[in-house]
Amino acid sequence: MDILATRPAVAEAAASLGAALAPEFGPRLLTTLATRAHYARSEGHHGEHLPDLVARPASVEEVQRLVRAAAEFCVPVVPYGAGTSLEGNAAAVAGGLCLDLSGMTQVLEIQTEDMLCVVEPGVTREQLNGELRATGLFFPVDPGADATIAGMIATRASGTNAVRYGTMRENTLALKVVLADGSVVRTGTRARKSAAGYDLTHLFVGSEGTLGVTVEATLRLHGVPETVLAGSWPFETLEGAVQTVIATVQAAVPVARMELLDAAAIGACNSYSNLSLPVQPTLFLELHGSEAHVHEQLETIQAIGADFGGGTLARALETEARSRLWKARHQALPAARAMLPNAVTWVTDVCVPISRLADAIGQVQRQVEGAGLVAPILGHVGDGNFHVFFVLPPDDEHAWARAREINEAMVEHALAVGGTCTGEHGIGIGKRGALVREHGREAVDLMRRIKDALDPAGLYNPGKLFRNSGNA
Amino acid sequence: MDILATRPAVAEAAASLGAALAPEFGPRLLTTLATRAHYARSEGHHGEHLPDLVARPASVEEVQRLVRAAAEFCVPVVPYGAGTSLEGNAAAVAGGLCLDLSGMTQVLEIQTEDMLCVVEPGVTREQLNGELRATGLFFPVDPGADATIAGMIATRASGTNAVRYGTMRENTLALKVVLADGSVVRTGTRARKSAAGYDLTHLFVGSEGTLGVTVEATLRLHGVPETVLAGSWPFETLEGAVQTVIATVQAAVPVARMELLDAAAIGACNSYSNLSLPVQPTLFLELHGSEAHVHEQLETIQAIGADFGGGTLARALETEARSRLWKARHQALPAARAMLPNAVTWVTDVCVPISRLADAIGQVQRQVEGAGLVAPILGHVGDGNFHVFFVLPPDDEHAWARAREINEAMVEHALAVGGTCTGEHGIGIGKRGALVREHGREAVDLMRRIKDALDPAGLYNPGKLFRNSGNA
Repeated sequence: MDILATRPAVAEAAASLGAALAPEFGPRLLTTLATRAHYARSEGHHGEHLPDLVARPASVEEVQRLVRAAAEFCVPVVPYGAGTSLEGNAAAVAGGLCLDLSGMTQVLEIQTEDMLCVVEPGVTREQLNGELRATGLFFPVDPGADATIAGMIATRASGTNAVRYGTMRENTLALKVVLADGSVVRTGTRARKSAAGYDLTHLFVGSEGTLGVTVEATLRLHGVPETVLAGSWPFETLEGAVQTVIATVQAAVPVARMELLDAAAIGACNSYSNLSLPVQPTLFLELHGSEAHVHEQLETIQAIGADFGGGTLARALETEARSRLWKARHQALPAARAMLPNAVTWVTDVCVPISRLADAIGQVQRQVEGAGLVAPILGHVGDGNFHVFFVLPPDDEHAWARAREINEAMVEHALAVGGTCTGEHGIGIGKRGALVREHGREAVDLMRRIKDALDPAGLYNPGKLFRNSGNA
Repeated sequence: MDILATRPAVAEAAASLGAALAPEFGPRLLTTLATRAHYARSEGHHGEHLPDLVARPASVEEVQRLVRAAAEFCVPVVPYGAGTSLEGNAAAVAGGLCLDLSGMTQVLEIQTEDMLCVVEPGVTREQLNGELRATGLFFPVDPGADATIAGMIATRASGTNAVRYGTMRENTLALKVVLADGSVVRTGTRARKSAAGYDLTHLFVGSEGTLGVTVEATLRLHGVPETVLAGSWPFETLEGAVQTVIATVQAAVPVARMELLDAAAIGACNSYSNLSLPVQPTLFLELHGSEAHVHEQLETIQAIGADFGGGTLARALETEARSRLWKARHQALPAARAMLPNAVTWVTDVCVPISRLADAIGQVQRQVEGAGLVAPILGHVGDGNFHVFFVLPPDDEHAWARAREINEAMVEHALAVGGTCTGEHGIGIGKRGALVREHGREAVDLMRRIKDALDPAGLYNPGKLFRNSGNA
């Protein structure tokens, strides 16, 4: 069944749902076009998908009531956080009720001795790190955007620090989740590890709102390192920069961050963030540890880089200089968008085994050049993950077609070398075909069986991961 | 439905299954009491559970054929590896077909550049590390026993190195699994991370053979460290040793191993392994890194321990001395068993948030002393995980009753402080009640829904995790 075909019926059911919810939710139920329009878009390139109504719950019980009411009226439920996802992960493709969790922003508990915290779903990573500032602890997962924690759980986000501190998978200890029938389950514990039953926590992490709505998360925290050393390091060639990364990972140097920016990305960052970095392929590095250990790491890395055309590593010694460097990296998306007037950006990512990274990036770079596209390449290369930021004039059909070809080839190559079609953005609507190519029909059928067992009516974020919704 | 009530019907069906399989499997199908008896027991205290027949497949296709045939005759399937599990995880409580995977022992691939390997299910961790010796890499997960990789996946095993290198969860990248209908699914990739769909790999890790039969695993490997420093470190009090661990973890010192042995455990190891360690609460430590970094870690730890009554750390400088130390630790189970003539050991484990570890261990120690039991306490304390080795005369009803009480109290306490009823042994048949107390009825119902979706006939390792099998 094509979920788009259900659209008029959903709109009608959603109107009834709205009438039923209005008395309780009042102004926290958004029904006008003007108020709903904000939720039709996210950072991705997947166009507009307007939900029929939007509710802004303030508690777990309200989420439960909303989910139960939606089930009663057979209306799809689409969780929404900061709107920073890239593959249409929170797009209301079948309309329905958008569940805006961004108002649930309490950090419920910070437990410094056990290095963990408990947060509501709408807490953002910057807010969390702000609240942690006095504790000597920090939450390391940093996808760049100031996403909500529940959104990061939904897409199994990672980012710049993942090479050292892990992704949302490694840093989510426990969850409270509202299931499609409105019941609440708690998964996981506060212990570092457990062998008690199925790993429900990690079934929900990365499930993109298709299995449950995260309403609370217990997260691992890490100690702020004694010494932090950051810097930017230009290379003669992209290949040399990537080879330096590969050798560093193979030497087990525990780098905290190791980001690649190609010359185009550096140019964009220079313009947008007012920097004056040499316009060359560059690694942004950060090392954490004791002073002695940080300097030992640095020496090892510099010795490696010297063999691969590494230039002078410009250290960002002050906190402020370091912040400027990472802020520039984090603003790579608007920086790319500013490279062409009125451009749309399409950000895609894959992740490959580290030994295949140079091949994978080299192939994309040649294709981008051959196609004459503007498409800086950036990557959390320490774990084999990289991004292409296609910067496209909205109406240039030819450019879009070439971008689609390059994206397809990039995914094919990643799968051919044993990698994955997405390291951290998720499947959403953009990579549903790739999901099947990556895992095979049997494994995707198994995912659907799990989906059907947990959400038999197929109302949770339909049209994501799988091409059809629910049991269809 | 009580699965034991199905026992006679299973035996009859198994006889028919045996007749059907005999032409293909010949001597690799074990049907006599003498040959099956070996599979009735494991290291645990859960008595004998004799399977009706045992097959020793040699390939994935043979596993598929066995599983399909068992489904046709409605016979339970119980995977079996090295028989080292502790909670009856591989006990054929409902009889049926025992699938002995210990003959599938090929290391299929070692990929040094990407630091991973692909193995058959019956490869043991010692075999694997033997085959890795020349590569400069090692597989870190070390539960003590020389378990099979598939068995370690089934119980989400961890052990001495987990505090630094993670458990089977962190070190299993991809799986090939035979489902209950005989189909094969591949999960995961060779990339370090992925956001592509549900995390099926980690649904199977820790599922104790109730969802699928692991027939191939892709594992992460780690570089052998430049410097390894091991040693034993006696403390005035158990409390002091535990406080040293807590402070070390909170200081984020990346210890590779940090094992606690109470005075009783040291006594047992001295006798069994011919050591002469001071009979005091002791930490066995191991530090990995560059020489400078290892010595820096050691200084930090020693400064911490000095505040908590730490004595002289006896370094095991030579490889041989280090091996003797860890061998003694690994032989703690037979060492404990040797403490009383004809004793049965019952090993239980819990895992708690690190700040609650001293309380948790202290409570158990007082109860063991109060009960007059022989029960050394050991632990992978760096991640809050510890074990009690009850050493019990088989017929002393009173002693068994007290052990049950202490185990219950230990689990209750772990759950009360946010911990888990098992850090690494799994639920098996021994902790089924605790599973519900830990996760709540809703979460265990959700686990059952997943079980029913994947194994609707309930033939995969029935009676484990849940009290009833299948849809019952």
